[in-house]
Amino acid sequence: MIFRQLFEPDSCTYSYLLACPDTGACAIIDPVIDTVERDLQVLRNLGLTLTCTIETHIHADHLTGALKLKRLTGSRICGPALDRLPCTDIGLWEGEPLRIGSIELWPLFTPGHTATHHCYRVNDGTHVLLFSGDALLIDACGRTDFQGGDAAALYRSIHDQLFALPDETLVYPGHDYEGRFVSSIAQEKARNPRLKDNQPLEAFVALMNSLELPYPRKMDFAVPGNQQCGECPPNVPEELRGPCERRDQG
Amino acid sequence: MIFRQLFEPDSCTYSYLLACPDTGACAIIDPVIDTVERDLQVLRNLGLTLTCTIETHIHADHLTGALKLKRLTGSRICGPALDRLPCTDIGLWEGEPLRIGSIELWPLFTPGHTATHHCYRVNDGTHVLLFSGDALLIDACGRTDFQGGDAAALYRSIHDQLFALPDETLVYPGHDYEGRFVSSIAQEKARNPRLKDNQPLEAFVALMNSLELPYPRKMDFAVPGNQQCGECPPNVPEELRGPCERRDQG
Repeated sequence: MIFRQLFEPDSCTYSYLLACPDTGACAIIDPVIDTVERDLQVLRNLGLTLTCTIETHIHADHLTGALKLKRLTGSRICGPALDRLPCTDIGLWEGEPLRIGSIELWPLFTPGHTATHHCYRVNDGTHVLLFSGDALLIDACGRTDFQGGDAAALYRSIHDQLFALPDETLVYPGHDYEGRFVSSIAQEKARNPRLKDNQPLEAFVALMNSLELPYPRKMDFAVPGNQQCGECPPNVPEELRGPCERRDQG
Repeated sequence: MIFRQLFEPDSCTYSYLLACPDTGACAIIDPVIDTVERDLQVLRNLGLTLTCTIETHIHADHLTGALKLKRLTGSRICGPALDRLPCTDIGLWEGEPLRIGSIELWPLFTPGHTATHHCYRVNDGTHVLLFSGDALLIDACGRTDFQGGDAAALYRSIHDQLFALPDETLVYPGHDYEGRFVSSIAQEKARNPRLKDNQPLEAFVALMNSLELPYPRKMDFAVPGNQQCGECPPNVPEELRGPCERRDQG
């Protein structure tokens, strides 16, 4: 499998390129509108055909590049079927793999950060690769204070779905804010400060409910924009327009 | 490829099991004498045949399990040819891969922690896996103050050999003392405090020479014992005998 880990620095988002070397079919998990041109250049350099984009959830901190990539390449937009977005081409369900050439990508229903969040699991023959979105982050986890967030649900998603994967499973998160790129299930079990030492559900919920995190600066336009798969909504503040403005000019 | 990351808690050493699923041929990189029984159980559980053990270098903090595993399974002892150990069955050179079934393991000459240290590189079809021994650790590197250690040589080994690998290369270190299991070349370039921000050679050498690390408690018997591929030497202090004592009784 061809694999690239791509970073968008404004929202510290990781996008993941997966491609089948036999067919050239390629998917990007959680593309960002700001880095669509970079992603297209990577695709050209590798000689790949973007067949689909895949969302882990409806993001609050950035606009997805899914719609822009579809307009430019014809890629299909994939995401959790439970989101019921009219703009999604293929709704994904746990237990039903998405095929990208010979690659099988398995959705895992992992609510908690949002009500319909999914992680994705790929077995490349050596490792299980877990694209953990904003459910499980390195030494952390996604916040649970909006979009149907639910700390108890997140605790169960992580323990029952993710910590049940093999110890060597590679954890590729949706974000990292400290320059970390990869972890493993063994590592998160051993040292994630929110989850280690068999921290009980009640303590996790109390911790998550005490975080008092700031309101995401892009949330007011990112959520409605992502509900349209990355359409730039009209209410983007001037200082945050960035890629939306460039798209209008192009 | 079948892959397991195994931990020995007394010296915080990682051993790595690599096996070819078609033939059942298996190697263990840097086995520890203390955990030979655990390793044998893992081999039995997976139905594998240990064909060889592979050393990254002559360790100062633990005794290798190579000789004990050879006596129990018939595995061949592999390690850097430059070590010129009479007990080594197969001397490894950079540029000459070792085959474990269909797996090709490529030695990389990476002096600095010791004068003859080697890392090993395996491409599993998705990732390059780098077994970095004590050259490159997660957010750190091996000490350079004995056994032909040389900070300038280590700097060049890391920059010229290891940082030349693809960003997504998985870094599997010889030790971790803080519960971390895996990193990537991109991650070590981005945040290793001894190496990031294009830290120049002179600053790295000054840092390494100022560390004032304690004398390794097992060094006086571990180094001569490992020069015999893990023979328990006669001068092991009573409080550190552990697996040597058990071997004498067994």
